[in-house]
Amino acid sequence: MLVLGIDPGLTRCGVGIISATKSKRSLIAVETIRSSPELSIEARLLAIGSAIDALIEHHEPELVAVERVFAQHNLRSVTGTAQVSGLALFQAARRGIPVSYYTPSEVKAAVTGNGRADKAQVGFMVKSLLGLDEIPKPADAADSLAIALCAVLRPQQTSNSETAAQRVWRNAARAAAK
Amino acid sequence: MLVLGIDPGLTRCGVGIISATKSKRSLIAVETIRSSPELSIEARLLAIGSAIDALIEHHEPELVAVERVFAQHNLRSVTGTAQVSGLALFQAARRGIPVSYYTPSEVKAAVTGNGRADKAQVGFMVKSLLGLDEIPKPADAADSLAIALCAVLRPQQTSNSETAAQRVWRNAARAAAK
Repeated sequence: MLVLGIDPGLTRCGVGIISATKSKRSLIAVETIRSSPELSIEARLLAIGSAIDALIEHHEPELVAVERVFAQHNLRSVTGTAQVSGLALFQAARRGIPVSYYTPSEVKAAVTGNGRADKAQVGFMVKSLLGLDEIPKPADAADSLAIALCAVLRPQQTSNSETAAQRVWRNAARAAAK
Repeated sequence: MLVLGIDPGLTRCGVGIISATKSKRSLIAVETIRSSPELSIEARLLAIGSAIDALIEHHEPELVAVERVFAQHNLRSVTGTAQVSGLALFQAARRGIPVSYYTPSEVKAAVTGNGRADKAQVGFMVKSLLGLDEIPKPADAADSLAIALCAVLRPQQTSNSETAAQRVWRNAARAAAK
């Protein structure tokens, strides 16, 4: 099974593809899509959205895993991050690929056993779980692989089979939308 | 000149198209794209993004005006609103259509003369400026027309000719992204 993990961001968007069987996971590709703050916001979103689409078209992942964006964190950059996450979800849905979302702490817990693990610990486990020689850099790239690994290590969670935490999140979003 | 105004939202996304000459503005089309909170987020974004794209393809607007999303307001719903605004910007950019953004107060000031005008006043002026018999409903529809009118009434503001307020906003976004 091929899984595309996406760590959404406007300046740096991490995208990592892993292959996973029951017993073995391996790195297929990882990169950081960058967009210059000098460009207009629409030019940046076009560049990132197109790069994600090209990646999906090329690798044909069976699942796209995206990190959830919380408005509570990083108030100043949340808009751009949310815009990129929206594009990632749209591009996956446009091709009919199932999507899973995970909170940052779900990702950390899945790969390190500790929902509050720091970046170094997450990077170490990404390297270890994928049998790499080095921790992928920058952190956005390593994070995208951690998100993809989370989708493989946790019980399957698409929109149709939510966890309790996801249900709480969805209900809150639903209440806010009314 | 045809202008498409977009009031981004996940449950209700207002989209309005006006035609404007130097002396006359008229309504071409207005609607509210809705997506059910019962659907998965990716299904909702797919529905809205596709509807925006179909609208752009059908009407071929020469400018797309989008209301800016501020993380400071409506913390709980800002993620969905930002995701939809990202899709709107992406769809415009994908077709090479220039984009303008306006803050809610810029829109209100442009159509009523008061940046703190209430919904009723904005609705009244949308009706008046477009020579309509009634105020378009719901408010999201009227707001999308106010956003399109703002683009016509204010000096042209695409990404290449920013106002002081937009410059401040962009610089803040740039600083946050570093």
